[in-house]
Amino acid sequence: MTNIRQHLDLIQRGAVEVIQRVELEAKLKKALAENRPLRVKAGFDPTAPDLHLGHTVLIHKLKHFQDLGHQVIFLIGDFTGMIGDPTGVSETRKALTKEQVLENAKTYQRQIFKILDPNKTTIEFNSRWMGSMTADGLIQLAAHYRVARMMERDDFHKRYHEQKPISVHEFLYPLVQGYDSVALKADVELGGTDQKFNLLVGRELQRDYGQESQVVITMPLLEGTDGVKKMSKSVGNYIALEDKPGEMFGKVMSISDTLMYRYYELLTTEDLGRAKALHPMEAKQALAELIVARYHGTDAGRQAKNEFQQKFQEREFPDNPDVRLQLTAQDLRQGETIGLVDLVAKTGLVPSKSEARRLIIQGGVEIDGQKQSDANAVLMVTVGRQYRVKIGRRKFAVVELRS
Amino acid sequence: MTNIRQHLDLIQRGAVEVIQRVELEAKLKKALAENRPLRVKAGFDPTAPDLHLGHTVLIHKLKHFQDLGHQVIFLIGDFTGMIGDPTGVSETRKALTKEQVLENAKTYQRQIFKILDPNKTTIEFNSRWMGSMTADGLIQLAAHYRVARMMERDDFHKRYHEQKPISVHEFLYPLVQGYDSVALKADVELGGTDQKFNLLVGRELQRDYGQESQVVITMPLLEGTDGVKKMSKSVGNYIALEDKPGEMFGKVMSISDTLMYRYYELLTTEDLGRAKALHPMEAKQALAELIVARYHGTDAGRQAKNEFQQKFQEREFPDNPDVRLQLTAQDLRQGETIGLVDLVAKTGLVPSKSEARRLIIQGGVEIDGQKQSDANAVLMVTVGRQYRVKIGRRKFAVVELRS
Repeated sequence: MTNIRQHLDLIQRGAVEVIQRVELEAKLKKALAENRPLRVKAGFDPTAPDLHLGHTVLIHKLKHFQDLGHQVIFLIGDFTGMIGDPTGVSETRKALTKEQVLENAKTYQRQIFKILDPNKTTIEFNSRWMGSMTADGLIQLAAHYRVARMMERDDFHKRYHEQKPISVHEFLYPLVQGYDSVALKADVELGGTDQKFNLLVGRELQRDYGQESQVVITMPLLEGTDGVKKMSKSVGNYIALEDKPGEMFGKVMSISDTLMYRYYELLTTEDLGRAKALHPMEAKQALAELIVARYHGTDAGRQAKNEFQQKFQEREFPDNPDVRLQLTAQDLRQGETIGLVDLVAKTGLVPSKSEARRLIIQGGVEIDGQKQSDANAVLMVTVGRQYRVKIGRRKFAVVELRS
Repeated sequence: MTNIRQHLDLIQRGAVEVIQRVELEAKLKKALAENRPLRVKAGFDPTAPDLHLGHTVLIHKLKHFQDLGHQVIFLIGDFTGMIGDPTGVSETRKALTKEQVLENAKTYQRQIFKILDPNKTTIEFNSRWMGSMTADGLIQLAAHYRVARMMERDDFHKRYHEQKPISVHEFLYPLVQGYDSVALKADVELGGTDQKFNLLVGRELQRDYGQESQVVITMPLLEGTDGVKKMSKSVGNYIALEDKPGEMFGKVMSISDTLMYRYYELLTTEDLGRAKALHPMEAKQALAELIVARYHGTDAGRQAKNEFQQKFQEREFPDNPDVRLQLTAQDLRQGETIGLVDLVAKTGLVPSKSEARRLIIQGGVEIDGQKQSDANAVLMVTVGRQYRVKIGRRKFAVVELRS
């Protein structure tokens, strides 16, 4: 019993919904009693997988099941991918060839096996059963679901009421996805919260086809580095699995502390209590190292961390600044003062005065460790004294007024 | 040109809508110019064809096209018939076997070739192309049509808004029917007014598949012998093609004059002006003879007419009535009167007084050739006089008060 409770805790880590928890518990007990691993399915798009960390939330959840001894099925939905968008409305859903699908599958494998154990992972393609289904069979399948229920799906409901087009074939795709669970006799299906409707269709179809319904587990959509929007390539807030170690490490370091703990929860199996006990800066570096190590190896992780720390040190005012500037009396206004904007511009480390002004307003300029955010400020300058000017995050100038 | 106009007149005889007339005219002209007959399609249910005159409206319209030299395609929709109703909701839509379909097709042939020329008629089964369609192909087909448009079909609209179930597969059937027109490259499709939506789907799909759109011709649903409801077996107002000659003749004779002209229009190629010039009774007998002759041969038609006329004579008050009733003083009220209901009931030709009352109210009782429709009427009865009572259409009693 303790065992089951621990299993449930791990499975529910980070999950949004488990439908239904009581069924999951029963399935886990039965699996244990009969020594029969559960069949755990997650479906993936067959389009070119420019994978980022957002895509790995499900794969980490699969890993949890795998660690508990269950059978993990990585399903590539190539059947619909090879149909593409027959309406021609969507530019991005061009029909894929069998070759492209296999190529993309290889990319998937290269990446997911950095998380999953290849020996315990089944990779499936739904064209295996859908490719040989007849029109007759699809009609029989479609008879299992009602139009009104289909219209309850958020996006269909919205589009219907906004009089935006829905093609009849779009009603068939959730049924195909649901039928995949029938064909695979899935015990559990994982998906993002945006997939909940389709996952539930699988539950119903399995019941109709005389199977025990799968448990549905929805996982959150991972926020990108901005901590607000869903991680996505088009928003630009993503960390790609093929980002170089240094870039990957830096991106992780740029996220907020709150998001860091979320990444810990969803992208690692680390103990969360232990992570929270560390100083946030330390915890974040440990996370970044862990992620780099996963996709580039342990050495690369350690190296990225060292380089980051070095750069971070360098960001303290360096012994050798980028620029040493000597001001003369001509550079000054009456009363031996100089405008802050003029001073920053004269270092030559910004392309223009307006850029200098922008940087100051954004809080990107410090003098002697003091942030200067008044773009209209006028500074008194003392002869012989060195002023240490930091411009942006990595540019440094030492300015002195000659006597 | 005169020719085209005559063709158009015949084609439009009895039709409810021609969509579009201008396209039909163009197609007819082109057919004539290129000496290429039009391909004219009508689809029929593959379920056991207990055919009645209602089913022959379309076949007569096919015959018009055939008479004008066009190619007639009698399409049996066996593909969906062999699927049946996968939801199991409809008892009457059990899946048919290939053998049953072929058996039904034979019955069709036996009947339709009493109207159409077998040498100029193509019989098709849509399983020929639908049977080999893949699920992939059906999805591609479904992409050609929008959910919102499908929802405009009267019955879908009604059921959706009344929250009655519509299964997703029902959205596929109009597409299958429409695709039949693509597969057959139909120039014209005929159907009942209740089929208009599906016929129009065919027009759209043909355009999408790069064909010239078919012209759609809708025909009325033939009223049954009651002149009000659509002819149907369940309502009981039908004339079956396999009704015996006498029964068939009698049923035609029972229809109203208005309905008779409608049957002339829809079920014959007779000149309507000439039919209207006849006395209605004569015209009706000619129609009945024509219909019997079509399904049972010329001799049977003539014989049915003779028999009917003989029976009709017999319906005049017969020399040997069913009952001769002697009333006695006990049967009478004071003042030698008797209630009309009592009189009718005493003949024993009705099962009860309430049935007698009903018959009187409906005008089914005559005394000495005068209709008696007041169920509360009280009659003076004269001793020694014979009263001739006609009850319903075929029962006769002679009643006399003994002295």
